[in-house]
Amino acid sequence: MEKSCISVFLLLVAVSYALAKDFTSKNDGKRDTKEVKETKPRLPQTLSRGWGDNLVWTQTYEEALFRAKNGNKPIMIIHHLEDCPHSQALKKVFAEHKEIQKMAEKFVLLNLVYETTDKNLSPDGQYVPRVLFIDPSLTVRADITGRYSNRLYAYEPSDISLLYSNMQKALKLLKTEL
Amino acid sequence: MEKSCISVFLLLVAVSYALAKDFTSKNDGKRDTKEVKETKPRLPQTLSRGWGDNLVWTQTYEEALFRAKNGNKPIMIIHHLEDCPHSQALKKVFAEHKEIQKMAEKFVLLNLVYETTDKNLSPDGQYVPRVLFIDPSLTVRADITGRYSNRLYAYEPSDISLLYSNMQKALKLLKTEL
Repeated sequence: MEKSCISVFLLLVAVSYALAKDFTSKNDGKRDTKEVKETKPRLPQTLSRGWGDNLVWTQTYEEALFRAKNGNKPIMIIHHLEDCPHSQALKKVFAEHKEIQKMAEKFVLLNLVYETTDKNLSPDGQYVPRVLFIDPSLTVRADITGRYSNRLYAYEPSDISLLYSNMQKALKLLKTEL
Repeated sequence: MEKSCISVFLLLVAVSYALAKDFTSKNDGKRDTKEVKETKPRLPQTLSRGWGDNLVWTQTYEEALFRAKNGNKPIMIIHHLEDCPHSQALKKVFAEHKEIQKMAEKFVLLNLVYETTDKNLSPDGQYVPRVLFIDPSLTVRADITGRYSNRLYAYEPSDISLLYSNMQKALKLLKTEL
């Protein structure tokens, strides 16, 4: 997990570089040649980015907040980077985990490679991968954490069961009957 | 243009309703049955939403700002709604206009159905369709307008040539040599 300790600046540099190459490529860790042919057929840029192609993903944080409140569903936000091997590894197990994919339908889903300006989404820093839950009352569930004390919202692929149980926890809404 | 005069509240209600039906459907004005089969194969949710499937679209406003500054490219932001016939009509001519599609490559592109919290993106209200340009210096080009004095940033399909020339105008950066 130490290697994923990237400063915001480095994050942005990395994203910038990754995106400059080819925004749409589903980079699985290995680099393509730098010369991206703009003429080659481009894969559609999907909102899922491989985190669950059969799930409904929101585009923006504003949209997610609106849908959470209106639909009384919790939000699950995954911050990640296409060029980060930790993000890619988590994405793989996340996308292949049938129960997680099923349970994810109960959430308003958002995956982001660019940080929002909302500081509540980085309670202990802007690292990736980072998974946060937000209650339909629009309260960030800072209490739902992974197992790393120095990056509370990070998950390794081996933590996928913990992530699953945290999703269950997030589905127990804070103010269901109020 | 009068009919596109929709308050923010109505916008959100409309979007909510449209999206509740099927977020991914490329709705061209006619309504499907309300019972969306969740089991039917879902079209991939693309960032282009039909405004130019071969163009690179950014996901969020934060991303667009970052790329504009870094790449020294102006931003073109299109606010629209899937359920709005004016938006759909403009989208059709926009997507089919070869010169516009070509010139659009020179912009950082963003199309949004949910408003951001940045008031600079609604100089005269939150109507759709609404096209705004932002200079790489991150200045909103409030001077680049359409032909309707009551909604300066709205375009009808018949205004597509004006939109094209406004794109040309936006490409002349404010502070190129500073």
